[in-house]
Amino acid sequence: MYKLVLIRHGESTWNLENRFTGWTDVELTPTGVEQAKEAGRLLKAEGYEFDVAYTSVLKRAIWTLWHTLDQMDRTWLPVVHSWRLNERHYGGLQGLNKAETAKKYGDEQVLVWRRSYDTPPPELDANDERSERSDPRYAKLKPEDVPLTECLKDTVARVLPVWNESIGPAIKAGKRVVIAAHGNSIRALVKYLDNIADDAIVGVNIPNGIPLVYELDANLKPIKSYYLGDEEAAKAAAAAVANQGKKG
Amino acid sequence: MYKLVLIRHGESTWNLENRFTGWTDVELTPTGVEQAKEAGRLLKAEGYEFDVAYTSVLKRAIWTLWHTLDQMDRTWLPVVHSWRLNERHYGGLQGLNKAETAKKYGDEQVLVWRRSYDTPPPELDANDERSERSDPRYAKLKPEDVPLTECLKDTVARVLPVWNESIGPAIKAGKRVVIAAHGNSIRALVKYLDNIADDAIVGVNIPNGIPLVYELDANLKPIKSYYLGDEEAAKAAAAAVANQGKKG
Repeated sequence: MYKLVLIRHGESTWNLENRFTGWTDVELTPTGVEQAKEAGRLLKAEGYEFDVAYTSVLKRAIWTLWHTLDQMDRTWLPVVHSWRLNERHYGGLQGLNKAETAKKYGDEQVLVWRRSYDTPPPELDANDERSERSDPRYAKLKPEDVPLTECLKDTVARVLPVWNESIGPAIKAGKRVVIAAHGNSIRALVKYLDNIADDAIVGVNIPNGIPLVYELDANLKPIKSYYLGDEEAAKAAAAAVANQGKKG
Repeated sequence: MYKLVLIRHGESTWNLENRFTGWTDVELTPTGVEQAKEAGRLLKAEGYEFDVAYTSVLKRAIWTLWHTLDQMDRTWLPVVHSWRLNERHYGGLQGLNKAETAKKYGDEQVLVWRRSYDTPPPELDANDERSERSDPRYAKLKPEDVPLTECLKDTVARVLPVWNESIGPAIKAGKRVVIAAHGNSIRALVKYLDNIADDAIVGVNIPNGIPLVYELDANLKPIKSYYLGDEEAAKAAAAAVANQGKKG
C-alpha cells in the first residue's frame, strides 16, 4: 500500500483581494505562510516522510511546499517542478475582481465559467500583457501549449500526463510523494483517482493548506482518503473556498 | 565563455553565537535572510539568468538559495541538492563556542584547526548525538563516507566529484549555474578553479551573501572573477569573516 499527500497552497494575495488568479504568479499572504507551516507541523507530528516532492511553477505553491518541508526538517528533499500542476488558466478573467466581474457579466455567466466542467472563460489575447507566452518558465513549451484560457476539462487533460509519466511511476517505484499544487490541479488528480463524474467534480472543494492523504493499492487505486488534523476544520475551510467570489 | 555564480549562505544563528557549525543544520538569522534577498536583487538588477541551481543539504544554504531565487522571480528553477557542497565537517568542535574552545585548547591549537589545510579537529564519536550518521539525508551514503571530522583538504576531496561529474558538465552543456553553498565548500571550488596553493587557500575568505562571479573559458578555466555590487563592501565582509572567532 502506498500513501500520497496533496496540499493546496495557502491563502494568496489575490484570494484575499477576491481576484481571478489562474496562472498569475501571486504571493502567499502571512496567513498563507502560516497555513503552509501548519501543514508541515501536522505531517511531522503524524510521522510522515517523503522521498520526492512535486509542485507547480507558481510561487504560491512552491513557497507552500518550502514552508511545509522546512517544518518537517526536509528542505533538502528533491523537488520536481511541473507547469502541468499549475492552477487552471483563467483566461481573460485573470486579474479581474470576482465581484466586479459578476456585476459586469452577471452572476449566472460567472457561475458557468467557475463551475461548468467544459465552458472556458473568454480567451486571453496572446498579445495581452497578462499572457504567459513570453514567460521564461514556459520557454520550452510550444507556444500553442501555453493556454490562453482553460475549462476544468482542459486542466484535467494537461495534468494527467505528469501523473501518468512521472508521479504514478515514482509512487510505484516506492517513492513517498507529496504534491503542493492548486485548487483545480488537485481537483484534476482527485477526479482521476476517485473516478468522479464531470458534473460532480466542480462541487469538490479543496481547502488551503490542509494535507489530503490518499492510501493507494498496488495499482494506485484509492483504498481511502482523508484530511489530516481536525476533520471539521477541513470541512469549514472547504466550504469557505466554495463561497469565494460570492461576497459582494 | 561561461558564467558561474557562487553565493555563500547569509549569516546563520551560530555565526551570531560564535559557535563551530560544520554540518549542524542551523537557520539563517533575519540578517542572513536579508543578505540572501539582497543577493537576488543584485543578480536581477544585473540581468543574470540561470538554468539550474546547486546547493547543499543544509538549510542555511538552501534558504539562501530560495530567497535569492525568489527575488529574481525564479523560484521554479530546478535545484540539485548535494551533500558534497556541505560546509566542512567540524568534528568534535561542532556546537562549541569558538571563544570557549580557544580558552580550553589555547588560541594556537584552535588556529591550527581553523587555518591549517590538512590538520582536522578531533573526531566526533560516531555515537555522539551530534553525529549525522543516522540523519536520513545521508541514508544513501556508506556510513564511512559520512565524515566524523574534516580538514580543508578532506573537504576539497569530497567537493570536487560534484564539480567534475555534475556541475562542470552542466556548464559545458550551456546551462547557466548558480551555487549556494558554504565558506569551505566554496573555498574548495575557488582553490580548484584558481589553482590556489594549499597554504594560501586558508587565507581566502568568502563573504556571506555576495554573489561571486566567475567568467570561464571553453575548458572552464577562469578568465576573471569578481564580486557583484560594491567591491569595498565585499572586502569588508570578507575581512569580517576572517575575524570570526577572534572576539572574546
